[in-house]
Amino acid sequence: MEQLEGQQSVLAALRARQRKFDVILVRHGIHQSAISELLEIAAATGVPIRYVDVSELNAIAHGASHGGVIAICSAKPRMTIEQLLQMLDTLKQLPLMLLLEGVEDARNLGFTLRSADAMSFHAVLIKKHLWDFDAVEVARPASGAYERMPLVQVDEISPLKQLQRRGIRIVGCLANVKQTIYDVDLKLATLLAIGGEKRGLSGAVREICDQFVTIPTREGGSSLSLSHAGAIVMAEAMRQRRLER
Amino acid sequence: MEQLEGQQSVLAALRARQRKFDVILVRHGIHQSAISELLEIAAATGVPIRYVDVSELNAIAHGASHGGVIAICSAKPRMTIEQLLQMLDTLKQLPLMLLLEGVEDARNLGFTLRSADAMSFHAVLIKKHLWDFDAVEVARPASGAYERMPLVQVDEISPLKQLQRRGIRIVGCLANVKQTIYDVDLKLATLLAIGGEKRGLSGAVREICDQFVTIPTREGGSSLSLSHAGAIVMAEAMRQRRLER
Repeated sequence: MEQLEGQQSVLAALRARQRKFDVILVRHGIHQSAISELLEIAAATGVPIRYVDVSELNAIAHGASHGGVIAICSAKPRMTIEQLLQMLDTLKQLPLMLLLEGVEDARNLGFTLRSADAMSFHAVLIKKHLWDFDAVEVARPASGAYERMPLVQVDEISPLKQLQRRGIRIVGCLANVKQTIYDVDLKLATLLAIGGEKRGLSGAVREICDQFVTIPTREGGSSLSLSHAGAIVMAEAMRQRRLER
Repeated sequence: MEQLEGQQSVLAALRARQRKFDVILVRHGIHQSAISELLEIAAATGVPIRYVDVSELNAIAHGASHGGVIAICSAKPRMTIEQLLQMLDTLKQLPLMLLLEGVEDARNLGFTLRSADAMSFHAVLIKKHLWDFDAVEVARPASGAYERMPLVQVDEISPLKQLQRRGIRIVGCLANVKQTIYDVDLKLATLLAIGGEKRGLSGAVREICDQFVTIPTREGGSSLSLSHAGAIVMAEAMRQRRLER
């Protein structure tokens, strides 16, 4: 069981209908108008609402921003690679996805899901052996995108090769390569791969990349954080795709 | 007095030479080669080094990532608007600056300073009445950029008008305006203004903006966080300026 905190998180999860809800705890005296859609979907889908004192919410909350609403529900299921392949077949556009490697901070993952959702990405893949993120910490900065954005965990290279066989090009972001994100055609079917701040992309992922690009930055200046680099490349993909329309 | 934690933060502050150092505490047994530049600058500038047990460092550290080095030093001075105007006169390029309004989270400010440094911005301005950031919390995600990047606090509109009189255009980022960041010429002398996630830009700032732009995102998708929106507009300015060379 997981715990979702905050009206927006709970509402997004109710809307996405991917979780099973045990109960939604709501603060006594909350403005009903503020949570009317939440109450409607809960009623329509048979999710019990229990009104409790704010002290009870504070006691079980992980964060400080529950705003009077906490839900107890199943974890959001991650998408399998098979489900992803099926989903890609239904798209009307050429697939556009992000692969993150070496992400360790749940907040950074959350922010990246949010940017991916804003930039019309179809899925986010995480290369990681063990899934050790606290879902609450991911969901909070993702602001609803955690519920909507298909999230696929891969722990080896073969699923990525499956995507390549479907015609998806893997474009790796590296420092110090000549070609920039502005030089490649991101309107094509693309999986953009970004590595963590410490080690970058692993050798195994680099080996299967079809090409490499860099985000131009000032020489001698700061490096970008993983989530900010991600936002910039995803915005560039969105820019290119908008120009095409 | 402030406390800087971590080799990178301390080294960046030593290099920038804007602070006065009382002492640098270094863990007994640290690899000297890892901090050789730090030790060199400290020796050259007469900053005392004191070797202590790791337990002492842990006891005074705010965060968990001091990595064996903590400095006690004066706060990094913020730049006044007069100093900023002087600095702009010395630039070889047309000025490019960011104005943040409604930023409340020290981490977000830190990440934005880092992106600004990466994207060749000349200064970051914060519109805020009271400076209530914990400098350690700003400096850590900024990864050295906190020391390098000129940071100006303004609490009213008149300094911004001074910039306008110097020929700097103020471009406000808003949701739902027609013109995008890709439609305006950011090679010109520009102050990009971004507002916080809750309220956006204030009426007072909007009133003096010369034009408005938006970052294209998916309709119905997530909004971007302040620091990620900032990274995207700053990368676009960098892209345009690189094309010109």
